[in-house]
Amino acid sequence: MHRIAAIISQGDEIVIGQTLDTNSRWIAARLLAAGISPVEHVSLPDDRIAIATTFARLSGKVDLILCSGGLGPTADDLTRFALADVLEDTLVEDAQSLRQIEAWFAARGRQMVDLNKVQAMRPTTATMLPNLHGTAPGIRARLGRCDIFCLPGPPRELTPMFESLVLPHLEPDRTRTVRVRVLHTIGLGESEIAGRFRAAPGGDLMDRNRSPLVGTTASNSVVSCRIRYEGPLSSSEADSLVARDEATIRSLIGEAIFGEDEDTLASVIVNTLKARRQSVATVESCTGGLIASQLTDIAGASEVFRSGWVTYANEAKVREVGVPETLFKDSPGSQAPGAVSAQVAHAMALGGARQADADFAIAVTGIAGPGGGSAEKPVGTVYVAIAGRGCDPDVRRFAFTGDRVAIREWSARAGLAMLWLTLSNRRSVKLLRQVEVARV
Amino acid sequence: MHRIAAIISQGDEIVIGQTLDTNSRWIAARLLAAGISPVEHVSLPDDRIAIATTFARLSGKVDLILCSGGLGPTADDLTRFALADVLEDTLVEDAQSLRQIEAWFAARGRQMVDLNKVQAMRPTTATMLPNLHGTAPGIRARLGRCDIFCLPGPPRELTPMFESLVLPHLEPDRTRTVRVRVLHTIGLGESEIAGRFRAAPGGDLMDRNRSPLVGTTASNSVVSCRIRYEGPLSSSEADSLVARDEATIRSLIGEAIFGEDEDTLASVIVNTLKARRQSVATVESCTGGLIASQLTDIAGASEVFRSGWVTYANEAKVREVGVPETLFKDSPGSQAPGAVSAQVAHAMALGGARQADADFAIAVTGIAGPGGGSAEKPVGTVYVAIAGRGCDPDVRRFAFTGDRVAIREWSARAGLAMLWLTLSNRRSVKLLRQVEVARV
Repeated sequence: MHRIAAIISQGDEIVIGQTLDTNSRWIAARLLAAGISPVEHVSLPDDRIAIATTFARLSGKVDLILCSGGLGPTADDLTRFALADVLEDTLVEDAQSLRQIEAWFAARGRQMVDLNKVQAMRPTTATMLPNLHGTAPGIRARLGRCDIFCLPGPPRELTPMFESLVLPHLEPDRTRTVRVRVLHTIGLGESEIAGRFRAAPGGDLMDRNRSPLVGTTASNSVVSCRIRYEGPLSSSEADSLVARDEATIRSLIGEAIFGEDEDTLASVIVNTLKARRQSVATVESCTGGLIASQLTDIAGASEVFRSGWVTYANEAKVREVGVPETLFKDSPGSQAPGAVSAQVAHAMALGGARQADADFAIAVTGIAGPGGGSAEKPVGTVYVAIAGRGCDPDVRRFAFTGDRVAIREWSARAGLAMLWLTLSNRRSVKLLRQVEVARV
Repeated sequence: MHRIAAIISQGDEIVIGQTLDTNSRWIAARLLAAGISPVEHVSLPDDRIAIATTFARLSGKVDLILCSGGLGPTADDLTRFALADVLEDTLVEDAQSLRQIEAWFAARGRQMVDLNKVQAMRPTTATMLPNLHGTAPGIRARLGRCDIFCLPGPPRELTPMFESLVLPHLEPDRTRTVRVRVLHTIGLGESEIAGRFRAAPGGDLMDRNRSPLVGTTASNSVVSCRIRYEGPLSSSEADSLVARDEATIRSLIGEAIFGEDEDTLASVIVNTLKARRQSVATVESCTGGLIASQLTDIAGASEVFRSGWVTYANEAKVREVGVPETLFKDSPGSQAPGAVSAQVAHAMALGGARQADADFAIAVTGIAGPGGGSAEKPVGTVYVAIAGRGCDPDVRRFAFTGDRVAIREWSARAGLAMLWLTLSNRRSVKLLRQVEVARV
């Protein structure tokens, strides 16, 4: 029975901050969807004792351990050795695995080098999990009452192996139900939401002794509200409890909700436009393609997104989407509004929508820094415009803080948020860090 | 004395996989740069007992704990309570902190709600760390011989607080030296590199009993080699040991190295072009702006990047950068090469470079999926072209695997890698997943 799980990610590069671990998050979401609650993630260096100690510690606490990484052919790949240590077992060569690894190389016209032989080694009491996308098979073992699955680190190998070789062997507690519902909002701060939840008719929604549990998470301007039930109720009873809380939340902050669960601003926009047979173009200066790449990340984007421009230089704004040259300052004392202005953002959006024959265009011009700021327009000053034949123009000025990466992310988020406000007829919503609605 | 450190990230949203923890990586890199070795990362749910237990466990193992998150005003913010538990202490209201939080709201024309008062609470033996960018002050405490710093989760609050309130108080062991050097490569697989390291003149570079330690990490087509010294030598002795290994590595795989430490393909390209006063444009289909956004992520990109296009639809490829209409299939049986072809990639790059008046253009056209594949051109088929007045054309076909996100990332990486090969005169290097060099 697998009720609670821990997730280990393995590698010096993660622990010293060279590489961002994305596997643990992915595994956690998949486990939760399968009805098993992740309760701890641990990242460890390539240290055989640290890995073995952690297997031992966690096996006394959880029913299931998922470990990623450390199964490569090199001397810093120690997961199999640590697993043998904690199992008080020795390693043997798995003949079938060795053949599979040889075949993997042969299929690519290469000969297996001796180095890769270690990848066919497993503790005698463990079993191998074949890897169709790389040379590192996974390993499955049992330590006390805890099941351990070790998978290779590269996501393109790990994800299919999880789906085909781990998921079918998971045994969630059928007498317990886990349900999670997430509602994503834009336009309200986290403490504003918490304040409204506190004043809910049935008492504070975020009380930690309440079931389901309600929590919030802020990521730039998006605040996500999570309703999570874990307990003995049947699926349908749990569903109705979660639905009741969802209804309460919608009554308290409904105007700010744009999506549920896996939805993102980009996916909601693409799907809404698709359903309405409308289209969007992008004209980006300081975001440099970030908005276009977020929209085109969504499968099926080609039905609603046909072209976009990264008009980084002023000449590009003029040449590509017809921004009037007179809007740019030709000399330091000029009275023209300049490249970072409501007028230029508006002209970029109008020109892009016209050129792409799109219903809407999102345009962004601003100062992401670190250079380029002035007293009047400091770093973080960003204008975002929505325009096109599908709507009246909406142009807003924002004052973002943070470094270049943060300002670009906030700006892209603001562009998507403003298009969503247009599509959902909620333009009166003021966004975080918005300082004014510009008249154009 | 702070020799080794652990990093905790706090929050249900992280443990259940709703949110990706990026703080731990950032903190780890900053600690290492300060001469302190991170040895474990842990992510925990909003569970007061789990947090307190982990503080207790880690305080027996490391000299320093950095914890992010769980300091907000809501009922699921439990870090301060857990800290008091493990310190066997009670919470008091810190008068100065309360005034600072009130002032933070006042400066924004808002009144502090009662909910935020808890953010001024600290264990009696702890001290507050003021937060200039949000309402959550940090907390500093000492548990046995371990120093604990708790910081708020939002990166824009955490990062300045780390720099001004944590870094000055760190006490790395001056009798120990930590040095890390990373060399980034493209064009060689991880086991090819490991094979060459094994045959190094002085013995296997990746031997785990060797000092400095040498390790490798693969991220798509980039393999990074890390040389890391930790020990009693002086800085200058450590530097020369690391430099010796770097020279050995350069002699073994020098042709594949494109950068060091914080370098990325995008930063190396932007800086190389800047130094040569050359420029680049992008014309992207399946990557949808990803390459442009990676290039413009680099400060100073405006000197070398002036415009880019996301020509997602065929009409956009024709209208915006002049790809000949005859290259597209006008009917299912047409003999034209079609949108995903070497000819179209080449025409996109040539047209973009001409239109942007750039020395080089990177163009990408391919099938990212999940739909759109065929027997002849399955999902993952991607053509990347480099062309412009600065070079002869280089067009390659790739066969990537994975989902839409992975294929887009591989494609963007391939585009940047091919431009780097052009800039460094190494076009003979074959990239991972490359299936042919197309004749155009």
